Amino acid sequence: MIQKLAVLGVGLIGGSFALALKRAGVVGSVVGYGRSRANLEAARSLGVLDAIAETPGAAVRDADAVCLAVPVGALPTLLAEIAPYLRDDALLTDVGSTKQDVILAGRAALGDRIVRFVPGHPIAGAEDSGAAAARPELFHGKSVILTPLPENRAEAVAQVSAWWQACGAEVTVMEAENHDRIFAAVSHLPHLAAFALVAELAERPEAALFFKHAGSGFRDFTRIAASHPEMWRDIALANQGALLDEINRYQEALTRLRQLLEDGDSAALHALFERAATARRALTSYLDRL
Amino acid sequence: MIQKLAVLGVGLIGGSFALALKRAGVVGSVVGYGRSRANLEAARSLGVLDAIAETPGAAVRDADAVCLAVPVGALPTLLAEIAPYLRDDALLTDVGSTKQDVILAGRAALGDRIVRFVPGHPIAGAEDSGAAAARPELFHGKSVILTPLPENRAEAVAQVSAWWQACGAEVTVMEAENHDRIFAAVSHLPHLAAFALVAELAERPEAALFFKHAGSGFRDFTRIAASHPEMWRDIALANQGALLDEINRYQEALTRLRQLLEDGDSAALHALFERAATARRALTSYLDRL
Repeated sequence: MIQKLAVLGVGLIGGSFALALKRAGVVGSVVGYGRSRANLEAARSLGVLDAIAETPGAAVRDADAVCLAVPVGALPTLLAEIAPYLRDDALLTDVGSTKQDVILAGRAALGDRIVRFVPGHPIAGAEDSGAAAARPELFHGKSVILTPLPENRAEAVAQVSAWWQACGAEVTVMEAENHDRIFAAVSHLPHLAAFALVAELAERPEAALFFKHAGSGFRDFTRIAASHPEMWRDIALANQGALLDEINRYQEALTRLRQLLEDGDSAALHALFERAATARRALTSYLDRL
Repeated sequence: MIQKLAVLGVGLIGGSFALALKRAGVVGSVVGYGRSRANLEAARSLGVLDAIAETPGAAVRDADAVCLAVPVGALPTLLAEIAPYLRDDALLTDVGSTKQDVILAGRAALGDRIVRFVPGHPIAGAEDSGAAAARPELFHGKSVILTPLPENRAEAVAQVSAWWQACGAEVTVMEAENHDRIFAAVSHLPHLAAFALVAELAERPEAALFFKHAGSGFRDFTRIAASHPEMWRDIALANQGALLDEINRYQEALTRLRQLLEDGDSAALHALFERAATARRALTSYLDRL
């Protein structure tokens, strides 16, 4: 049971975490801090928050649980701001889409308190953002990855794991480096690829004509290009190394495909499309549950 | 009113066209030809077809309307096969995703009969294929592009347009070259980009681990990678020139994005993502109707 949860960054994810724990009856009260006063007021009126803090330090001062839910680029500063105010027994987690950089920031700011910081990443994206989009069932049946540190005590990991299970999520544990490599491939690269395609089309003189004829394939392929620009800027920079590798691989794959097309190599094109279609179809029932 | 419609290639599109015209009460009977006997039998038992023809020539012999609904790569041979059997007054259309190559094939095979061939492209894709996936409402509210030839008589264009309107579609007329350029950008490139990404991931030793952590963004981005490999091989080859241009532009966009990431250019990355997100969000309500 959490007596007082501090949520720093009360957006879709932080807000839904608070709502889910409230619904599960495992949290006494929730105090929030964020950059936008209007968003915090909305969060309070929607029952996401019980109280609004004026500073990050004030938010964590009496909290026994702290959830860091700001874009990952904002974490180093935020961690430095809260460190002096943390209770000795406060347990911390975050929801960042990258983990090695978050751990680096945590080690730099938290000192010995790092033993009670268990990094996490809920796999529950959406284009909507802000507290108004938060909902208690967001994590139901979704996956949450925890990337515990060698310094974490087992009971701290178990506790953060229990919070997410109370939200209805399935918890998986893996190393941060593995996490970042996997998500560079299956999440960060697709986002960048969609951003690049839409930005390129949008700057053409004929953009309106082109978009007018977009169909359902374009709709699905580009849906993630509507994602939060600041959040994705931070993710890209935070996972720079793995993501550069993935862009290289993708460009090499496109170059090979381009060559097959230029050569008019019908059999090899068909084989490539067949491999992709077979792999994607095998995933369909799994992915459609998400 | 069509007395006898011949559908050559009784898949999702050809089958749905037949069902939609039947429901609208504007066709007497439908005869079909295709490569797969099992698919044709399914089409007949589902009421898509009234009769099965043993050859393309037999299918069109008594037909006053002909719909060519095979992968575009099969059209040159098919057109040559049916040309000697066409009624003098038969009106032809096709449903190919590329138009300049179809017109070339039509001119080569049809001679003077080209005046009664009005090329078309319904924008109504789906991953499902085959007659069993056909449904009469597939084209409801969807867009159908016609790319009439200079030789077409206005009444032929009006007639084919009326067929599609009877299917519930909205008809737009444009030049074939424009059509192919637009769809290279908004349809063919996204398909190839999705095929390339999934094929590349699928051949890695860790593919299963990676796919296990795919989320809803990956699901949407790669949905079109499950599309019909043969159909897309044909489309890619048929629209080779415009598509090579689009791959070049996309590669250049990815290279610029990669450079921003390598340089750690936070402001420029944010601006690029913001441009994409703004453009994509402006399309959301339009695309969500599809």
